[in-house]
Amino acid sequence: MDKTALNKISYGMYIVCTKNNDKFCGCVANSAMQITAEPATIAVSINHNNYTNEKIKECGEFSICVLPENINPLTIGTFGFRSSRDFDKFENTKYFIKDGLPVCEDACAYILCKVINTSETNTHTIFIGKIKDCEILKNDPPMTYAYYHNIIKGKSPKNAPTYIS
Amino acid sequence: MDKTALNKISYGMYIVCTKNNDKFCGCVANSAMQITAEPATIAVSINHNNYTNEKIKECGEFSICVLPENINPLTIGTFGFRSSRDFDKFENTKYFIKDGLPVCEDACAYILCKVINTSETNTHTIFIGKIKDCEILKNDPPMTYAYYHNIIKGKSPKNAPTYIS
Repeated sequence: MDKTALNKISYGMYIVCTKNNDKFCGCVANSAMQITAEPATIAVSINHNNYTNEKIKECGEFSICVLPENINPLTIGTFGFRSSRDFDKFENTKYFIKDGLPVCEDACAYILCKVINTSETNTHTIFIGKIKDCEILKNDPPMTYAYYHNIIKGKSPKNAPTYIS
Repeated sequence: MDKTALNKISYGMYIVCTKNNDKFCGCVANSAMQITAEPATIAVSINHNNYTNEKIKECGEFSICVLPENINPLTIGTFGFRSSRDFDKFENTKYFIKDGLPVCEDACAYILCKVINTSETNTHTIFIGKIKDCEILKNDPPMTYAYYHNIIKGKSPKNAPTYIS
Protein backbone atom coordinates (compact mmCIF):
# COMPACT_ATOMS: atom_id res chain seq x y z
CA MET A 1 0.00 0.00 0.00
CA ASP A 2 1.39 3.35 -1.10
CA LYS A 3 -0.61 6.02 0.73
CA THR A 4 0.75 8.75 -1.53
CA ALA A 5 -1.75 7.34 -4.08
CA LEU A 6 -4.39 9.15 -1.98
CA ASN A 7 -2.80 12.43 -3.07
CA LYS A 8 -4.29 11.73 -6.51
CA ILE A 9 -7.74 12.51 -5.12
CA SER A 10 -8.72 16.08 -6.01
CA TYR A 11 -10.09 18.56 -3.49
CA GLY A 12 -10.77 22.24 -3.14
CA MET A 13 -9.83 24.52 -0.25
CA TYR A 14 -12.54 25.89 2.01
CA ILE A 15 -13.08 27.76 5.24
CA VAL A 16 -16.00 26.21 7.10
CA CYS A 17 -17.56 28.61 9.61
CA THR A 18 -20.27 28.56 12.22
CA LYS A 19 -21.42 30.66 15.14
CA ASN A 20 -21.03 30.28 18.87
CA ASN A 21 -23.76 32.50 20.30
CA ASP A 22 -22.65 35.98 19.23
CA LYS A 23 -19.13 34.88 18.21
CA PHE A 24 -17.93 33.25 15.02
CA CYS A 25 -15.47 30.43 14.48
CA GLY A 26 -14.14 28.51 11.51
CA CYS A 27 -11.42 26.26 10.17
CA VAL A 28 -9.84 25.27 6.87
CA ALA A 29 -11.23 22.11 5.29
CA ASN A 30 -10.49 20.36 2.03
CA SER A 31 -12.96 17.49 2.27
CA ALA A 32 -16.24 18.85 0.91
CA MET A 33 -18.45 17.45 -1.81
CA GLN A 34 -21.96 17.75 -3.11
CA ILE A 35 -24.00 14.65 -2.28
CA THR A 36 -27.35 15.19 -3.99
CA ALA A 37 -28.61 17.58 -6.65
CA GLU A 38 -32.27 17.93 -5.60
CA PRO A 39 -32.56 18.92 -2.83
CA ALA A 40 -28.96 20.16 -2.99
CA THR A 41 -26.92 18.73 -0.13
CA ILE A 42 -23.23 18.82 0.65
CA ALA A 43 -20.93 16.81 2.94
CA VAL A 44 -17.95 18.19 4.84
CA SER A 45 -15.57 16.22 7.05
CA ILE A 46 -14.31 18.01 10.18
CA ASN A 47 -11.92 16.59 12.79
CA HIS A 48 -13.31 16.03 16.30
CA ASN A 49 -10.44 18.15 17.65
CA ASN A 50 -11.59 21.21 15.72
CA TYR A 51 -13.54 23.66 17.86
CA THR A 52 -15.67 24.31 14.76
CA ASN A 53 -16.88 20.68 14.85
CA GLU A 54 -18.26 21.15 18.38
CA LYS A 55 -19.90 24.44 17.49
CA ILE A 56 -21.52 23.18 14.26
CA LYS A 57 -23.12 20.44 16.35
CA GLU A 58 -24.47 23.04 18.81
CA CYS A 59 -25.59 25.53 16.17
CA GLY A 60 -26.81 23.14 13.44
CA GLU A 61 -25.67 25.43 10.65
CA PHE A 62 -22.46 26.24 8.82
CA SER A 63 -21.13 28.31 5.96
CA ILE A 64 -18.59 27.11 3.40
CA CYS A 65 -16.32 29.78 1.91
CA VAL A 66 -14.68 28.56 -1.31
CA LEU A 67 -11.12 29.90 -1.42
CA PRO A 68 -9.78 31.25 -4.71
CA GLU A 69 -6.22 30.58 -5.92
CA ASN A 70 -5.30 34.18 -5.05
CA ILE A 71 -6.45 34.00 -1.42
CA ASN A 72 -4.10 35.74 1.00
CA PRO A 73 -1.95 32.89 2.46
CA LEU A 74 -2.29 34.63 5.85
CA THR A 75 -5.99 33.73 5.78
CA ILE A 76 -5.09 30.05 5.42
CA GLY A 77 -2.54 30.48 8.22
CA THR A 78 -5.14 32.06 10.50
CA PHE A 79 -7.93 29.57 9.86
CA GLY A 80 -5.85 26.45 9.22
CA PHE A 81 -3.16 26.48 11.86
CA ARG A 82 -4.72 28.12 14.91
CA SER A 83 -7.73 27.19 17.05
CA SER A 84 -10.87 29.28 17.50
CA ARG A 85 -10.81 27.89 21.05
CA ASP A 86 -8.20 30.46 22.08
CA PHE A 87 -8.08 32.96 19.22
CA ASP A 88 -10.65 35.15 17.46
CA LYS A 89 -9.97 34.34 13.80
CA PHE A 90 -12.43 36.98 12.60
CA GLU A 91 -10.78 39.88 14.41
CA ASN A 92 -8.45 40.58 11.48
CA THR A 93 -10.49 38.95 8.71
CA LYS A 94 -12.76 40.83 6.31
CA TYR A 95 -16.15 39.14 6.41
CA PHE A 96 -19.86 39.79 6.20
CA ILE A 97 -22.80 38.10 7.85
CA LYS A 98 -25.40 36.29 5.75
CA ASP A 99 -28.41 34.70 7.48
CA GLY A 100 -26.48 34.85 10.75
CA LEU A 101 -23.39 33.05 9.43
CA PRO A 102 -20.00 34.60 8.65
CA VAL A 103 -18.67 34.64 5.07
CA CYS A 104 -15.07 35.62 4.24
CA GLU A 105 -15.06 38.51 1.78
CA ASP A 106 -12.13 37.02 -0.13
CA ALA A 107 -13.99 33.78 -0.94
CA CYS A 108 -14.94 33.20 -4.58
CA ALA A 109 -18.26 31.65 -3.51
CA TYR A 110 -20.15 30.79 -0.35
CA ILE A 111 -22.63 28.08 0.55
CA LEU A 112 -24.90 28.24 3.60
CA CYS A 113 -26.03 24.90 5.03
CA LYS A 114 -28.34 23.48 7.65
CA VAL A 115 -27.15 20.18 9.15
CA ILE A 116 -29.63 17.40 8.29
CA ASN A 117 -27.47 14.39 9.14
CA THR A 118 -24.10 13.48 10.60
CA SER A 119 -21.95 10.37 10.33
CA GLU A 120 -19.22 9.74 12.92
CA THR A 121 -15.85 8.11 12.39
CA ASN A 122 -13.18 7.65 15.03
CA THR A 123 -11.56 11.01 14.21
CA HIS A 124 -13.96 13.02 12.01
CA THR A 125 -17.62 13.98 11.75
CA ILE A 126 -19.16 14.05 8.28
CA PHE A 127 -21.77 16.80 8.35
CA ILE A 128 -24.45 16.50 5.67
CA GLY A 129 -25.84 19.98 5.05
CA LYS A 130 -28.92 20.98 3.10
CA ILE A 131 -27.99 24.05 1.07
CA LYS A 132 -30.07 27.04 2.13
CA ASP A 133 -28.31 29.57 -0.04
CA CYS A 134 -25.23 29.89 -2.24
CA GLU A 135 -23.74 32.68 -4.32
CA ILE A 136 -20.67 33.40 -6.42
CA LEU A 137 -18.68 36.38 -5.09
CA LYS A 138 -16.09 36.59 -7.85
CA ASN A 139 -15.09 34.57 -10.88
CA ASP A 140 -11.52 33.81 -9.80
CA PRO A 141 -10.64 30.12 -10.14
CA PRO A 142 -11.12 28.11 -6.95
CA MET A 143 -7.95 26.86 -5.28
CA THR A 144 -7.48 23.11 -5.50
CA TYR A 145 -5.65 21.19 -2.83
CA ALA A 146 -3.06 20.27 -5.49
CA TYR A 147 -2.50 23.98 -6.18
CA TYR A 148 -2.11 24.63 -2.45
CA HIS A 149 0.52 21.89 -2.15
CA ASN A 150 2.33 22.20 -5.48
CA ILE A 151 2.17 25.91 -6.29
CA ILE A 152 2.07 27.73 -2.97
CA LYS A 153 3.85 24.85 -1.17
CA GLY A 154 1.31 24.66 1.66
CA LYS A 155 1.31 22.01 4.36
CA SER A 156 -1.47 19.89 5.88
CA PRO A 157 -2.09 20.19 9.61
CA LYS A 158 -2.44 17.00 11.67
CA ASN A 159 -6.24 17.33 11.88
CA ALA A 160 -6.66 16.99 8.10
CA PRO A 161 -8.17 13.72 6.82
CA THR A 162 -5.46 13.78 4.16
CA TYR A 163 -2.57 14.15 6.61
CA ILE A 164 0.29 11.70 5.96
CA SER A 165 2.78 11.45 8.82
CA MET B 1 -29.61 31.27 -4.56
CA ASP B 2 -27.30 30.82 -7.54
CA LYS B 3 -26.66 27.08 -7.87
CA THR B 4 -23.77 27.69 -10.27
CA ALA B 5 -21.84 28.65 -7.09
CA LEU B 6 -21.70 24.88 -6.45
CA ASN B 7 -19.50 24.58 -9.55
CA LYS B 8 -16.79 26.25 -7.46
CA ILE B 9 -16.42 23.04 -5.44
CA SER B 10 -13.46 21.04 -6.75
CA TYR B 11 -13.61 17.34 -7.57
CA GLY B 12 -11.65 14.68 -9.34
CA MET B 13 -12.92 12.16 -11.89
CA TYR B 14 -13.11 8.50 -10.96
CA ILE B 15 -14.42 5.17 -12.13
CA VAL B 16 -15.87 3.28 -9.18
CA CYS B 17 -16.04 -0.46 -9.80
CA THR B 18 -17.30 -3.53 -8.03
CA LYS B 19 -18.07 -7.15 -8.83
CA ASN B 20 -21.29 -9.00 -9.43
CA ASN B 21 -20.39 -12.65 -8.87
CA ASP B 22 -17.95 -13.33 -11.73
CA LYS B 23 -18.77 -10.14 -13.65
CA PHE B 24 -17.57 -6.59 -13.10
CA CYS B 25 -19.42 -3.32 -13.25
CA GLY B 26 -18.56 0.32 -12.66
CA CYS B 27 -19.58 3.92 -13.21
CA VAL B 28 -18.03 7.36 -13.37
CA ALA B 29 -18.15 9.35 -10.13
CA ASN B 30 -16.79 12.74 -9.16
CA SER B 31 -17.84 12.84 -5.49
CA ALA B 32 -15.07 11.08 -3.59
CA MET B 33 -13.10 12.31 -0.61
CA GLN B 34 -10.88 10.99 2.13
CA ILE B 35 -12.65 11.08 5.49
CA THR B 36 -10.03 9.97 8.00
CA ALA B 37 -6.27 9.54 7.90
CA GLU B 38 -5.82 6.68 10.37
CA PRO B 39 -7.34 4.26 9.58
CA ALA B 40 -7.58 5.65 6.07
CA THR B 41 -11.20 5.86 4.95
CA ILE B 42 -12.83 7.38 1.91
CA ALA B 43 -16.41 8.38 1.02
CA VAL B 44 -18.00 8.11 -2.42
CA SER B 45 -21.50 9.18 -3.39
CA ILE B 46 -23.32 6.96 -5.91
CA ASN B 47 -26.84 7.49 -7.26
CA HIS B 48 -29.47 4.89 -6.34
CA ASN B 49 -30.20 4.46 -10.08
CA ASN B 50 -26.65 3.29 -10.77
CA TYR B 51 -26.38 -0.49 -11.06
CA THR B 52 -22.98 -0.14 -9.37
CA ASN B 53 -24.72 1.18 -6.21
CA GLU B 54 -26.80 -2.01 -5.93
CA LYS B 55 -23.79 -4.24 -6.56
CA ILE B 56 -21.51 -2.45 -4.04
CA LYS B 57 -24.19 -3.09 -1.42
CA GLU B 58 -24.26 -6.80 -2.31
CA CYS B 59 -20.50 -7.21 -2.58
CA GLY B 60 -19.34 -4.87 0.21
CA GLU B 61 -16.23 -3.82 -1.68
CA PHE B 62 -15.31 -1.37 -4.41
CA SER B 63 -12.32 -0.05 -6.31
CA ILE B 64 -11.75 3.61 -7.18
CA CYS B 65 -9.77 4.27 -10.36
CA VAL B 66 -8.42 7.83 -10.43
CA LEU B 67 -8.63 9.13 -14.01
CA PRO B 68 -5.72 11.13 -15.40
CA GLU B 69 -6.18 14.22 -17.60
CA ASN B 70 -5.13 12.17 -20.65
CA ILE B 71 -7.70 9.40 -20.16
CA ASN B 72 -9.32 8.24 -23.39
CA PRO B 73 -12.66 10.12 -23.55
CA LEU B 74 -14.24 6.89 -24.82
CA THR B 75 -13.59 5.38 -21.38
CA ILE B 76 -15.63 8.18 -19.77
CA GLY B 77 -18.31 7.65 -22.42
CA THR B 78 -18.44 3.92 -21.70
CA PHE B 79 -18.51 4.17 -17.90
CA GLY B 80 -20.35 7.48 -17.54
CA PHE B 81 -23.18 7.33 -20.00
CA ARG B 82 -24.19 3.68 -20.25
CA SER B 83 -25.48 1.23 -17.65
CA SER B 84 -23.76 -1.96 -16.54
CA ARG B 85 -27.31 -3.31 -16.26
CA ASP B 86 -27.45 -3.94 -20.01
CA PHE B 87 -23.87 -3.54 -21.21
CA ASP B 88 -20.53 -5.14 -20.29
CA LYS B 89 -18.33 -2.05 -19.80
CA PHE B 90 -15.23 -4.17 -19.32
CA GLU B 91 -15.50 -6.00 -22.64
CA ASN B 92 -13.51 -3.32 -24.48
CA THR B 93 -11.66 -1.83 -21.48
CA LYS B 94 -8.10 -2.69 -20.52
CA TYR B 95 -8.12 -3.68 -16.85
CA PHE B 96 -6.50 -5.97 -14.34
CA ILE B 97 -7.86 -7.66 -11.26
CA LYS B 98 -6.49 -6.80 -7.82
CA ASP B 99 -7.82 -8.63 -4.76
CA GLY B 100 -10.85 -9.63 -6.81
CA LEU B 101 -11.73 -6.10 -7.94
CA PRO B 102 -11.25 -4.61 -11.41
CA VAL B 103 -8.83 -1.71 -11.95
CA CYS B 104 -8.70 0.24 -15.24
CA GLU B 105 -5.18 0.11 -16.66
CA ASP B 106 -5.37 3.74 -17.76
CA ALA B 107 -6.01 5.04 -14.22
CA CYS B 108 -3.22 7.07 -12.61
CA ALA B 109 -3.93 5.45 -9.22
CA TYR B 110 -6.31 2.95 -7.67
CA ILE B 111 -7.80 2.56 -4.21
CA LEU B 112 -9.42 -0.67 -2.98
CA CYS B 113 -12.04 -0.29 -0.26
CA LYS B 114 -14.20 -2.37 2.03
CA VAL B 115 -17.56 -0.77 2.91
CA ILE B 116 -17.70 -0.06 6.66
CA ASN B 117 -20.67 2.33 6.70
CA THR B 118 -23.30 3.82 4.42
CA SER B 119 -25.45 6.92 4.68
CA GLU B 120 -28.61 7.22 2.58
CA THR B 121 -30.09 10.32 1.03
CA ASN B 122 -33.19 10.46 -1.15
CA THR B 123 -31.16 9.96 -4.34
CA HIS B 124 -27.62 8.84 -3.40
CA THR B 125 -25.81 6.43 -1.09
CA ILE B 126 -22.64 7.65 0.57
CA PHE B 127 -20.39 4.62 0.90
CA ILE B 128 -17.68 4.92 3.55
CA GLY B 129 -14.86 2.59 2.62
CA LYS B 130 -11.87 1.49 4.65
CA ILE B 131 -8.87 1.54 2.35
CA LYS B 132 -7.42 -1.96 1.98
CA ASP B 133 -4.84 -1.08 -0.62
CA CYS B 134 -3.87 1.80 -2.90
CA GLU B 135 -1.14 2.32 -5.47
CA ILE B 136 0.00 4.89 -8.00
CA LEU B 137 0.04 3.51 -11.56
CA LYS B 138 1.55 6.52 -13.33
CA ASN B 139 2.49 10.05 -12.43
CA ASP B 140 0.18 11.82 -14.90
CA PRO B 141 -1.85 14.59 -13.28
CA PRO B 142 -5.31 13.50 -12.13
CA MET B 143 -8.23 14.96 -14.05
CA THR B 144 -10.30 17.45 -12.11
CA TYR B 145 -13.98 17.93 -12.73
CA ALA B 146 -13.18 21.50 -13.81
CA TYR B 147 -10.75 20.15 -16.41
CA TYR B 148 -13.40 17.72 -17.66
CA HIS B 149 -15.92 20.53 -18.07
CA ASN B 150 -13.70 23.39 -19.20
CA ILE B 151 -10.96 21.70 -21.22
CA ILE B 152 -12.50 18.58 -22.73
CA LYS B 153 -16.04 20.08 -22.59
CA GLY B 154 -17.56 17.04 -20.91
CA LYS B 155 -21.15 16.87 -19.69
CA SER B 156 -22.70 15.61 -16.44
CA PRO B 157 -25.26 12.81 -16.68
CA LYS B 158 -28.53 13.14 -14.74
CA ASN B 159 -27.38 10.73 -12.02
CA ALA B 160 -24.51 13.01 -10.95
CA PRO B 161 -24.88 14.79 -7.59
CA THR B 162 -23.59 17.90 -9.36
CA TYR B 163 -26.13 17.78 -12.20
CA ILE B 164 -27.83 21.14 -12.83
CA SER B 165 -30.93 20.91 -15.06
